[in-house]
Amino acid sequence: MPELRQNLATQEWVVIATERARRPHDFAVSDRILTHQRPEYVKTCPFCPGNEDHTRPTLLQLPDEKWLVRVFSNLYPALTLDGSRDLNFSGIYRRLNGVGYHEVIVESPRHNTTPGTQTSEEILFTLKAFQERGREIIADRRIEHIVYFKNHGSSAGGSLEHPHSQLVALPVVPAETRRRIEIQRAFFDDSFTCSICEMLEEESDDGRRIIDSNSCFTAFIPYAASAPFLVWIVPHRHGPTFLDQLPHELQALAEIMKSVLGRLYRGLHDPDYNYIIRTAPVRDSSSAYIHWYISIVPRITKAAGFEISTGMFINPSLPEESAKFLHEQLPDSPLS
Amino acid sequence: MPELRQNLATQEWVVIATERARRPHDFAVSDRILTHQRPEYVKTCPFCPGNEDHTRPTLLQLPDEKWLVRVFSNLYPALTLDGSRDLNFSGIYRRLNGVGYHEVIVESPRHNTTPGTQTSEEILFTLKAFQERGREIIADRRIEHIVYFKNHGSSAGGSLEHPHSQLVALPVVPAETRRRIEIQRAFFDDSFTCSICEMLEEESDDGRRIIDSNSCFTAFIPYAASAPFLVWIVPHRHGPTFLDQLPHELQALAEIMKSVLGRLYRGLHDPDYNYIIRTAPVRDSSSAYIHWYISIVPRITKAAGFEISTGMFINPSLPEESAKFLHEQLPDSPLS
Repeated sequence: MPELRQNLATQEWVVIATERARRPHDFAVSDRILTHQRPEYVKTCPFCPGNEDHTRPTLLQLPDEKWLVRVFSNLYPALTLDGSRDLNFSGIYRRLNGVGYHEVIVESPRHNTTPGTQTSEEILFTLKAFQERGREIIADRRIEHIVYFKNHGSSAGGSLEHPHSQLVALPVVPAETRRRIEIQRAFFDDSFTCSICEMLEEESDDGRRIIDSNSCFTAFIPYAASAPFLVWIVPHRHGPTFLDQLPHELQALAEIMKSVLGRLYRGLHDPDYNYIIRTAPVRDSSSAYIHWYISIVPRITKAAGFEISTGMFINPSLPEESAKFLHEQLPDSPLS
Repeated sequence: MPELRQNLATQEWVVIATERARRPHDFAVSDRILTHQRPEYVKTCPFCPGNEDHTRPTLLQLPDEKWLVRVFSNLYPALTLDGSRDLNFSGIYRRLNGVGYHEVIVESPRHNTTPGTQTSEEILFTLKAFQERGREIIADRRIEHIVYFKNHGSSAGGSLEHPHSQLVALPVVPAETRRRIEIQRAFFDDSFTCSICEMLEEESDDGRRIIDSNSCFTAFIPYAASAPFLVWIVPHRHGPTFLDQLPHELQALAEIMKSVLGRLYRGLHDPDYNYIIRTAPVRDSSSAYIHWYISIVPRITKAAGFEISTGMFINPSLPEESAKFLHEQLPDSPLS
């Protein structure tokens, strides 16, 4: 019988559609060239080494001497740096100049790699770049919120193959971001605890949905996961923002990301996915009831009319089964 | 310069990305077989006439004698009819039995038609079927909300070609549905008016975003449309629910849907889309601050990490330009 489950931290209900359920390996992608099977260098790729002048100027590169990670403004930015953030009106509607930042983080000089096949040292450079750029951008008083994300593969909105992630710094707090924070705050007001800390404790005790954990982070499939193989990576230290993660925490984060993304890559044959760092808005960066985390969303199912209408999802997989499958993968096994 | 615009009724901000903007005709689909170019009858199609026993039993057919529209339960339902709606717990999490309705409305005996090429008389049968089934289902006390929608094409989650729409009756009010209603209520409490009535007046006065209107409905692209060619069809008579539309209103709705979907079909070459009837939850069916409407969402752009993270969208088109383009299409011109 199908089941409705509610996520404790977002209050969203999800339909776990057992009548439509498939086994974990049925979700594996077939008939495609995996990232590591592509060429290591592509002459026409604007992100490959030697083509640095095909992009906007470098804002940051790590390490300094010879880049492994490189940051620059998007060539077709959704937002631009110039101008003020004056609120004005068009008839009854509010409008703003589209001021903000839209940056690309190239994650490797190699064309045919991806976090699922990278080492944790490589992933750590990307996380450091996010932090370094984020810390600089929040000093701009026009910015309310920064979104750090990756689009891997065309179903996930990725338009270029070369491994890269992005950040967008916004002059507003999005309504959905605000809604999630309000729910965390209301939970805290009612219970004097954090809903995400509670989930972390519950998941660790239960164990069935855990994929991996280390000294600072636990990765699990939420009880009410809205999509097959959706994973949360939650920091053990309660706190509102990714930007204040200490070096040893960032290291542990890189390790668990490598573990989870490596398992997805091997278990499901390089599925398209997005990952998102859900961190506090700039002016909430010391709101003690917020707990930041990372959400990894494989793009295996499609949002249709029902999902667009309700914001509610139908998940044709069982979180416990998917977690067991990922837990049993070897994140580091040789690639063929 | 890019621009942020806020939707008055949903409070959601959207980025109108002028730097990435394309002209309206650039969004037209190319290289595909349009719906009307397919065969009229497909022997293996479970929804074609003669194959009625390949589906669940008929719940309703219109007209009575020889069906033009036929309703039955989904073969792989997301929710099932049996069981109670008891709230219970799994550890700290809430869960429910997945009780509810999941029905398919076949919109025509002909395989190669779609609302964009149908007559308003044909569309009217579908709307009548929605109303008749909805009125029966709300008598079931386990049901809190009904979603009426169509998935046209594979990018919109449509898995079968034969024209059909669906309804899902849920045992909960989805969090996103509740959020939209709360915003309508707060607007009413503050201003003693309805935000959607205000939009209707503003759009009619301004005129630049209007696609079509008749005695009972106006179709326009919202000022802060979250996707290219997203259209709202708004009833002139303020009221919470689609189910209490009178026969002459349903007739006018069929006519304007034919007009809008016909323009999309011809202007953009049969794009994939979802439409959604945004009507009040069952227990809000006399909440006087709610204004129901229809949203048509062409699936031309993809939600990526940014959109998943924020619920905010980047629209690479200008609503005024898209509306002018659709307004100038002939919804009834011959098909080639």
